[in-house]
Amino acid sequence: MVYDGPMDEFGLIDTFVSRFDVAPPPRGPGDDCAVLASQGPSCVTTDAVFEGVHFTRPGFSLEEVGHKALAVNLSDLASMGARPSWFTVALGLPRGIKPGDLKKLGDGMSALARTHGAELVGGNVTRAAQLSVTVTIAGALDGPPLLRSGARAGDALYVSGPLGDAAAGLKAKSAALRRAQRRPTPHLAFGQLARTLCSAAIDVSDGLAQDLGHVCRASGVSAELLSDALPLSEALLKFAGSRQAALPYALTGGEDYVLLVAVRRSEPFERAMTQAGFVFHHLGWLREGRGVKLDGVPLSGKLGFKHL
Amino acid sequence: MVYDGPMDEFGLIDTFVSRFDVAPPPRGPGDDCAVLASQGPSCVTTDAVFEGVHFTRPGFSLEEVGHKALAVNLSDLASMGARPSWFTVALGLPRGIKPGDLKKLGDGMSALARTHGAELVGGNVTRAAQLSVTVTIAGALDGPPLLRSGARAGDALYVSGPLGDAAAGLKAKSAALRRAQRRPTPHLAFGQLARTLCSAAIDVSDGLAQDLGHVCRASGVSAELLSDALPLSEALLKFAGSRQAALPYALTGGEDYVLLVAVRRSEPFERAMTQAGFVFHHLGWLREGRGVKLDGVPLSGKLGFKHL
Repeated sequence: MVYDGPMDEFGLIDTFVSRFDVAPPPRGPGDDCAVLASQGPSCVTTDAVFEGVHFTRPGFSLEEVGHKALAVNLSDLASMGARPSWFTVALGLPRGIKPGDLKKLGDGMSALARTHGAELVGGNVTRAAQLSVTVTIAGALDGPPLLRSGARAGDALYVSGPLGDAAAGLKAKSAALRRAQRRPTPHLAFGQLARTLCSAAIDVSDGLAQDLGHVCRASGVSAELLSDALPLSEALLKFAGSRQAALPYALTGGEDYVLLVAVRRSEPFERAMTQAGFVFHHLGWLREGRGVKLDGVPLSGKLGFKHL
Repeated sequence: MVYDGPMDEFGLIDTFVSRFDVAPPPRGPGDDCAVLASQGPSCVTTDAVFEGVHFTRPGFSLEEVGHKALAVNLSDLASMGARPSWFTVALGLPRGIKPGDLKKLGDGMSALARTHGAELVGGNVTRAAQLSVTVTIAGALDGPPLLRSGARAGDALYVSGPLGDAAAGLKAKSAALRRAQRRPTPHLAFGQLARTLCSAAIDVSDGLAQDLGHVCRASGVSAELLSDALPLSEALLKFAGSRQAALPYALTGGEDYVLLVAVRRSEPFERAMTQAGFVFHHLGWLREGRGVKLDGVPLSGKLGFKHL
């Protein structure tokens, strides 16, 4: 197939890669594979953002698309307590994509990669009906990872930031809410510290209720959330009009990319997090049994962001 | 977003994953990341197949799509001389995809994964305008990898199988040619042995002329191909009608996924390959200078399969 745009496949790859600090091959892009040195225990994950599903144009700038595509992957590393190491990028490019578009996409991604020490080592481009960015990322583990399955009844539940802002940011004019949706911040440093202090973790990508449900199923416990304890930003409260109206965003909105952690011993956790300067909010408990309750009422039905 | 098909996101993931031999989390799919044990030197690559670009439906069965998506990635490992270890799969699923479709896709992929000892460790699904399968795969290296850049003037050029069949298989009725396009065989065992005997390698995914050009540029050499020496299958000769008519398929067709290797010492290479029972064809030489010549005439212009 021949691309009908102004550049060929290899020109587009070069343009994208030029925005990153890459090693020469074989460590960096340019051979059939990237060659990696011996590694200790590591984590790997893959996540994709597709136009019309995870972002719209021009609702998102291409810098924001690049940022978000990497951020959602970094957030998965954060939830394991891992340190980012390398990543690959597979791009699906619709007709009409220009070199300048790939520069913007690359700039949004490379700024975040630089912040967190993640190294682009390879990738792929193909023509596609819609713009998509599929990232696969690996991180190093300095000890046992935080899993979904490590929680026990009696653990306290905390999140690392406010909930619901990202979902509201799809509709709101507030700059803070729009930014939460378009430039989510992966909580990597929080996750690395939490790894030594917590019993389980997940990043809140599909909404608190759904992601907490994953932890409950994996750990064989139930959860009790306190609606008064859910951390809601001033911007969300202002946009929603009331705490009651804001709660659905917090419970089912998704895409917040804060970390939800289960903690056996709250006192040392809170002390260490405070000393490190991290935000944390206690919002409930894990109990024996199954399911997630809010103020004693079981949550059920279709909850959370669906990627399909 | 809510999927309008008969199953939800997690049901579709479970259906796909059920076709593979997977480890429980955290090694296998099911947590935010897969957790990998310490690894020696390794290779990683990512490659995607998109409907309408790399395959059509119903021109390809879904088993064939699953096979090909993994095969093209395994072929990149083969060209480094690596042994497959783990892979992730990111699926873009159009509306109308059914659980049975995902079973077929998974079956086509898992059969090939099992053959080569590649382990599914994670993935992602999202709704998309067209069916796509993006695989990221890692392989272990038992010594220095085969790179594109290792060749020198004077090296002999060999390929590990016939050229042009896959491209002809898009049009031909021949079962052998159709199979070459739809179920390419990654030459992993050849690559692992070649790693100890060759100076450079690439897999022929974009056509001999283009891929040989990559080796020449990376190694700073030129190449001389002999048209009489290009290995053409009986099926391709029959389909094309003559050797002359078959040559364009061999030179620019792409998707053959045979390995092209540069060899400094032909005698031990040929002896070891013969003893191991591998097919190999000598088809030219590397020289000082730049560019690729066929029977002394420089090849130029648009050559090879474009993914855009």
